[in-house]
Amino acid sequence: MTRPVFPFAAIVGQDDMKLAILMAAVDQGIGGVLAFGDRGTGKSTTIRALAALLPPMKVMQGCRYHCDPASPDTWCADCRALGKGKTVTVPVPVVDLPLGATEDRVVGALDLERALTGAKVFEPGLLARANRGFLYIDECNLLEDHLVDLLLDVAASGENVVEREGLSIRHPARFVLIGSGNPEEGELRPQLIDRFGLSVEVRTPQDLPTRMEVIRRRDAFERDPAGFLETWKKAQDKTRKRIVEGRNRLAGVTVPDASLEQAAKLCMALGTDGLRGELVLIRAARAFAALEGDKGVLDRHLRRMAPMVLSHRLRRNPLDEAVASVRVARAVEEQFGA
Amino acid sequence: MTRPVFPFAAIVGQDDMKLAILMAAVDQGIGGVLAFGDRGTGKSTTIRALAALLPPMKVMQGCRYHCDPASPDTWCADCRALGKGKTVTVPVPVVDLPLGATEDRVVGALDLERALTGAKVFEPGLLARANRGFLYIDECNLLEDHLVDLLLDVAASGENVVEREGLSIRHPARFVLIGSGNPEEGELRPQLIDRFGLSVEVRTPQDLPTRMEVIRRRDAFERDPAGFLETWKKAQDKTRKRIVEGRNRLAGVTVPDASLEQAAKLCMALGTDGLRGELVLIRAARAFAALEGDKGVLDRHLRRMAPMVLSHRLRRNPLDEAVASVRVARAVEEQFGA
Amino acid sequence: MTRPVFPFAAIVGQDDMKLAILMAAVDQGIGGVLAFGDRGTGKSTTIRALAALLPPMKVMQGCRYHCDPASPDTWCADCRALGKGKTVTVPVPVVDLPLGATEDRVVGALDLERALTGAKVFEPGLLARANRGFLYIDECNLLEDHLVDLLLDVAASGENVVEREGLSIRHPARFVLIGSGNPEEGELRPQLIDRFGLSVEVRTPQDLPTRMEVIRRRDAFERDPAGFLETWKKAQDKTRKRIVEGRNRLAGVTVPDASLEQAAKLCMALGTDGLRGELVLIRAARAFAALEGDKGVLDRHLRRMAPMVLSHRLRRNPLDEAVASVRVARAVEEQFGA
Amino acid sequence: MTRPVFPFAAIVGQDDMKLAILMAAVDQGIGGVLAFGDRGTGKSTTIRALAALLPPMKVMQGCRYHCDPASPDTWCADCRALGKGKTVTVPVPVVDLPLGATEDRVVGALDLERALTGAKVFEPGLLARANRGFLYIDECNLLEDHLVDLLLDVAASGENVVEREGLSIRHPARFVLIGSGNPEEGELRPQLIDRFGLSVEVRTPQDLPTRMEVIRRRDAFERDPAGFLETWKKAQDKTRKRIVEGRNRLAGVTVPDASLEQAAKLCMALGTDGLRGELVLIRAARAFAALEGDKGVLDRHLRRMAPMVLSHRLRRNPLDEAVASVRVARAVEEQFGA
Amino acid sequence: MTRPVFPFAAIVGQDDMKLAILMAAVDQGIGGVLAFGDRGTGKSTTIRALAALLPPMKVMQGCRYHCDPASPDTWCADCRALGKGKTVTVPVPVVDLPLGATEDRVVGALDLERALTGAKVFEPGLLARANRGFLYIDECNLLEDHLVDLLLDVAASGENVVEREGLSIRHPARFVLIGSGNPEEGELRPQLIDRFGLSVEVRTPQDLPTRMEVIRRRDAFERDPAGFLETWKKAQDKTRKRIVEGRNRLAGVTVPDASLEQAAKLCMALGTDGLRGELVLIRAARAFAALEGDKGVLDRHLRRMAPMVLSHRLRRNPLDEAVASVRVARAVEEQFGA
Amino acid sequence: MTRPVFPFAAIVGQDDMKLAILMAAVDQGIGGVLAFGDRGTGKSTTIRALAALLPPMKVMQGCRYHCDPASPDTWCADCRALGKGKTVTVPVPVVDLPLGATEDRVVGALDLERALTGAKVFEPGLLARANRGFLYIDECNLLEDHLVDLLLDVAASGENVVEREGLSIRHPARFVLIGSGNPEEGELRPQLIDRFGLSVEVRTPQDLPTRMEVIRRRDAFERDPAGFLETWKKAQDKTRKRIVEGRNRLAGVTVPDASLEQAAKLCMALGTDGLRGELVLIRAARAFAALEGDKGVLDRHLRRMAPMVLSHRLRRNPLDEAVASVRVARAVEEQFGA
Repeated sequence: MTRPVFPFAAIVGQDDMKLAILMAAVDQGIGGVLAFGDRGTGKSTTIRALAALLPPMKVMQGCRYHCDPASPDTWCADCRALGKGKTVTVPVPVVDLPLGATEDRVVGALDLERALTGAKVFEPGLLARANRGFLYIDECNLLEDHLVDLLLDVAASGENVVEREGLSIRHPARFVLIGSGNPEEGELRPQLIDRFGLSVEVRTPQDLPTRMEVIRRRDAFERDPAGFLETWKKAQDKTRKRIVEGRNRLAGVTVPDASLEQAAKLCMALGTDGLRGELVLIRAARAFAALEGDKGVLDRHLRRMAPMVLSHRLRRNPLDEAVASVRVARAVEEQFGA
Repeated sequence: MTRPVFPFAAIVGQDDMKLAILMAAVDQGIGGVLAFGDRGTGKSTTIRALAALLPPMKVMQGCRYHCDPASPDTWCADCRALGKGKTVTVPVPVVDLPLGATEDRVVGALDLERALTGAKVFEPGLLARANRGFLYIDECNLLEDHLVDLLLDVAASGENVVEREGLSIRHPARFVLIGSGNPEEGELRPQLIDRFGLSVEVRTPQDLPTRMEVIRRRDAFERDPAGFLETWKKAQDKTRKRIVEGRNRLAGVTVPDASLEQAAKLCMALGTDGLRGELVLIRAARAFAALEGDKGVLDRHLRRMAPMVLSHRLRRNPLDEAVASVRVARAVEEQFGA
Repeated sequence: MTRPVFPFAAIVGQDDMKLAILMAAVDQGIGGVLAFGDRGTGKSTTIRALAALLPPMKVMQGCRYHCDPASPDTWCADCRALGKGKTVTVPVPVVDLPLGATEDRVVGALDLERALTGAKVFEPGLLARANRGFLYIDECNLLEDHLVDLLLDVAASGENVVEREGLSIRHPARFVLIGSGNPEEGELRPQLIDRFGLSVEVRTPQDLPTRMEVIRRRDAFERDPAGFLETWKKAQDKTRKRIVEGRNRLAGVTVPDASLEQAAKLCMALGTDGLRGELVLIRAARAFAALEGDKGVLDRHLRRMAPMVLSHRLRRNPLDEAVASVRVARAVEEQFGA
Repeated sequence: MTRPVFPFAAIVGQDDMKLAILMAAVDQGIGGVLAFGDRGTGKSTTIRALAALLPPMKVMQGCRYHCDPASPDTWCADCRALGKGKTVTVPVPVVDLPLGATEDRVVGALDLERALTGAKVFEPGLLARANRGFLYIDECNLLEDHLVDLLLDVAASGENVVEREGLSIRHPARFVLIGSGNPEEGELRPQLIDRFGLSVEVRTPQDLPTRMEVIRRRDAFERDPAGFLETWKKAQDKTRKRIVEGRNRLAGVTVPDASLEQAAKLCMALGTDGLRGELVLIRAARAFAALEGDKGVLDRHLRRMAPMVLSHRLRRNPLDEAVASVRVARAVEEQFGA
Repeated sequence: MTRPVFPFAAIVGQDDMKLAILMAAVDQGIGGVLAFGDRGTGKSTTIRALAALLPPMKVMQGCRYHCDPASPDTWCADCRALGKGKTVTVPVPVVDLPLGATEDRVVGALDLERALTGAKVFEPGLLARANRGFLYIDECNLLEDHLVDLLLDVAASGENVVEREGLSIRHPARFVLIGSGNPEEGELRPQLIDRFGLSVEVRTPQDLPTRMEVIRRRDAFERDPAGFLETWKKAQDKTRKRIVEGRNRLAGVTVPDASLEQAAKLCMALGTDGLRGELVLIRAARAFAALEGDKGVLDRHLRRMAPMVLSHRLRRNPLDEAVASVRVARAVEEQFGA
Repeated sequence: MTRPVFPFAAIVGQDDMKLAILMAAVDQGIGGVLAFGDRGTGKSTTIRALAALLPPMKVMQGCRYHCDPASPDTWCADCRALGKGKTVTVPVPVVDLPLGATEDRVVGALDLERALTGAKVFEPGLLARANRGFLYIDECNLLEDHLVDLLLDVAASGENVVEREGLSIRHPARFVLIGSGNPEEGELRPQLIDRFGLSVEVRTPQDLPTRMEVIRRRDAFERDPAGFLETWKKAQDKTRKRIVEGRNRLAGVTVPDASLEQAAKLCMALGTDGLRGELVLIRAARAFAALEGDKGVLDRHLRRMAPMVLSHRLRRNPLDEAVASVRVARAVEEQFGA
């Protein structure tokens, strides 16, 4: 009964967006992706497509957090208590967080109905549902700050802790947070922007063949989903393999001292606040190297990652009116050569 | 006990409005109609008239969502559980969404009264009632954004998902969303406008005979509804047939590559954000072709649809002070010739 | 135990206000009366006086909506279920809607107390109490828009539909809505003003004899209500008869084509939005003709009604600084001659 | 256990304030007193003093509205049901309405506690407690408008009607409403000011002997309340007698046509909105005549009352910068001679 | 388990603040103390110190309002009902009223928990706890006006009356209200300032020896509280005795006419609103005389008290830019001589 | 199952921040630390690191406040009632206080669920959890003032008192309050800033080697936490020993009169409000001396502490535009010599 999903491999253009979520799929600890820009450019489609591409997950049967049978150290308290049992296979979840969602709905709450009958049952929220998948917030710049804050915290720690109303629950909540928004329509607090790992800009393609190709593929998909999916099966398999191999390779990627120096120099040149800039840059470069099949971080990994990692971490510089991404590009060029 | 409804075929003028909702009746996936303009021009009358014109629907007896007996794959969980049963015939619903409606009332909620007695019963909302019909929001620019957002989501997906307070309900909610509003009195967020499929402008007619004709027909209808309906029966039947045939024809309408190119070129020339412009333009052109009895999309279908699809998707261009509809008309003329 | 009411016939001056509510008493479908202007001019007194003048109503005994025994097709569900029964006679109600009233109190709500004991009983609101009478809102420009909106809807349809909290109630709610307000102290949304059928201006009389007469009659009434009522009995009876005859005559009044043309021309000359102007003008002219004892609508009926129907429907015209009523008067004169 | 109250007769100065509440004690229908001006001038003391001066009231034993045994036609439903019974004697109540009071607390509400056990009991509010006495609102310009409005309504009608939550209660609520406030700190809506019957200005005395006398008497009272009350007993008795006789005389006071003319002329000269000015002026003049022992209204009664009745009913006149009381005085002088 | 309190006698400087609360300890009817000025100057310490200095109070055992066994006429209803019983000894309470306190928490409320089980029990609030002690509000200029208002009312009447939700409780609430605040950070409404009996300014000492002494004593106290308290025992006893004797002497202090005249003249010269200025000045002078051991009020008592009583009662005078305390000092000097 | 914590000793730079929390660990009565400045500088990491460094605490088994078995005089009521029992060992808690936390969640509240079944059980809040550890508030300038106020009160008194809803609970709540914030994004009320004991500024390091070292250590830690912790074990032990010895030494550190004088002179020169500046300065100097292994306070202790203690206590001086820390440094230099 699930509706067919447009294949990731068939998405035309939007390379930064696609790379950013691929990397988040490889290293979830990278800290979420913030996608700025035009509406109607298929951000939501891209995320759903990636999730559908990933191999379905094995989960503990009956577990409300779909715990991973293969990682007992990440199990929820119920799974620990029950121990190994049956497993089932489900698709990777993509959860939409609506703007008006209450904190209760996001983190979960006491099941009030059963509370009236004396039982104290936790009613899991959207965070539980997103575990091991993606949490997507459209127009996250219009979400209340404390919710974005909470989401970034949970995404970073991989755990949702609910302690109130006599409840004391903690359950796994590992997910990739994707926020989108148009900066013209309301700003995020700088503190929050800063805590997203990567940011990408998403623009409407401006060449005719690309646009026609988008409509053609979309139309083909809508008329005959099954046939379309069959056509793209091979490309899908290839992308899936690339993600899986990147994940396996990640732990072994080395970071030479020269890379550390490059990262720090770049951040100093750009005057980013704190040290989160270089920390994430190194992490992102490692994930990118893993995805590319390289064994160590190289300058070209840093160069490719720098705009995604640093553009949203610049202070406004009144003497330099260039937009952030141009300033990052310029600094990259000065440091590494054109 | 239902009050007689003014016949659709007897509505004087307002061609764009009438065409837009006819098309939404042919292809509900077209994404809602936004009607801008003067008050007192009979928008609400037009919708009610169209709904009354459509053949009454067969529904599963006792179903709170009036599921369609002919489409088991769209049934609600109850209908699936009970399987084929008796059917009854009801008019196509037109539901008004009042400005002050709470989210609970719109999407439905836990029946609190029964909850006190221990039962967990879902109380369907306005979306349930609108299933397979029309949902009308007067002055939708004054509705809270998150509600409009929610409505557009549901209208697009055809399904209302309610997950909270221990409820996990999903039921079919396929309807044509009609929003009206006067842009002088409060703007919709650009993101929301952009998600409406079609927009039309509704103006007060400015010629005397038209206005007299409106009053005359209205007066005739109010004095003798039965007689008036009899007079217009033939015209009504003709319109009804046109809709039904359009629906049947829709799936078979072809879209040649040249139409894709025209659509993309037009959107690029107008600088619409994202690709939703061309996607909807193709879809609308196909629906229009189906309504007109054509087997493939032609330039004239694109030309007729372009203003309804694109006028509300333009960015404000400070170098071009023309109103949106004039800019679309000019671009159409430049591309297709006058 | 009811307090004596000042007789309608003894009210000095205020001809427009008195005519407007007389007409609303003749044709309730005329859409409510908006009374603008000075405070302390006896608007509330006038309405109460008219209601007291009307013959007491026969109602179904025990019916919470005081259904009319003579019109079974307007009965509430309870009366339908119980069928013909005893009837009692009650005065025509005048209900005050206080500014702070909640929607629950206006439309009615679930009786929470009984709900706790498991019963699901509808607690009727002010609309139920106003059925077949008058609903008066002082300073309606300070009432929340959505309430005014709701009231105009109900007044127009004659039915109050309450669907929420598991309730699905509809009951008759036919009443004349009277709103008063001082435009200097807060405006109504143009959409709402536009939906009132008639508007009148109420000013303090500026000649000494009139003012003395007002005080004298008021004083006489307060000292000896019974005697005063006796004095005015004949005049009261005459007015009552005029209303009753107007009601009987209404359905038979004809509207010649020339009147339609005059109405449409006048509205076009004044540039009113939509066609509600001419629709109401025709309806009002018919009611006025009925009240006057005429068999068809004549120019003089249109002339008399035009200011009440159209003054509140004009757009502000920057090139014409005259107040709305002057502009209507001028247009009337240009069209019909002085 | 009641604390001794400073005697009314011993209050130094503040003649307007004292006269205004004396008159309200004679004719409660006069519509409340608005006292403007300096703080610390003993407004609250004056009211409490007058109430203590009035003969204690006989009330129906056990009645929550302390109904008057002598006026069965003003009884509450309970007293009517129970019929004549025992009576007790209580002091005339003075009720303070605090700024933060909720509407429930003012008008009364369902007793929630008993409602939980199934009973539907009305819990009387401040209005019930004030019945047959005084309701005092300090800084009434800071009270929410809808509450002032409600209070003036009840004070005028002498009845509190509570209809909601399944309750339908009406009980007598006849009281003198006294509002005080400093216009420098927040304005009343003009509609509300207009509905107060009388307004007086209260200023700090500016001569030394008066001020010393105030402190001396206050000091004497605080040191030996009993002795002080004894000293002033005779003066108190005299004032009490004047009130009681005024009440008895009121119904018989005549109003000659010349007085009506004077009242209307004065109001026209001052341009007051509506006719409430002259209606109240006549009523106040009659009450004053009764208090003074006169059998008919004379010019000097009108002259004395005009400032209290009209000062708060003037429109701001940009061509006449004089304060309202001066404008009234001037108009009085022009009309009646100096 | 109570923590040791810094001894009142060891407080360095802050003479006005200390005198003001001493006087409030002698005559609680003086109306509260408002302490303006710098933060970190030990206002809270001073109050706690005075309270600890006062002899512990005898209270009725088990009484929630710690009623005074020696004054049956001030007992709460429970104590009256139970009559004389056991007594216990407790320290004089000092209650902090936090800024965010709800009215329920301040005045007390129905015990909701017990209400669910059918009992109707009053849950005393902060006012109950403060009975016979001190109620301290830091930053009272940031407290909601209606709460300050309520507190001043209760402090003046010595009684807390709670009448709502079916409760009708009155209990003794005699306490000294101390408000502190920095006028730079938010103003009190003039009406409220005016109702405080005394105001004092609290400044940081500006001489080195004083400041060193403060730190030295504080340090000594913190290192060895017991030893420090022993050192100051004698001075403490002396102060305690002074308070107790002042209380005993208060009722007998005489106020000569000359003092009345001086008080009134001073207030007139300063143009204070109303007569509260002189009333409080006389009362304060009497309390001061009692504290000083004098039998009648003398000019020097008036002189000492005038700044505390009058500084906060002046209107802003645009022609006299001097701060209020200087204006009072100047007026005092002009009247009494330098 | 606890995640490994980055070692305190391995933190690069941030000397003021580290010193400030070390001192708070030595003398918790010092009054909290306010950390101003850049985001991403590891404030949260530093606190967690210090807490992890401290020896795990022995606590009373089952105690919800983890009372200290060694200090019966600080026990909660339950521990007192139960007396000595089993003890367990737990890590020092670090509690995050989220911005949106309600007061109930912070101070604890009645357990509503159990209340429905009749029991009256206190549900401890975040303050209970923080007992004997750290409470960290990121962006405390965005927290509601009354909460910061409450937290500073509790941190100062070491006790959380909850008295409402029929509860009367007091439990130990001794913790170090750490607030962080960027003054560019919202100010604290001056009163609140003033009540923090110490303030430090936290800046991004600006030299390349430091930054590289930060990333290198972080990277090493993340790849092999166990190995990294082993490497730093010795340095950790040394720091731990320093804290423990400082705590033991604290009570014996002497404060010579000359130090008092220096402290008072410095504060007078800087014009700090009140005397809290010198009181904290002496206390901080004593703690610093203890940490340094000195037996008495010396000028160098005052010098080192002055900026942390005084910078946030200066008034804005329009004649001296230097930032607060520069003004303190200058005053220190003038007084003690460069």
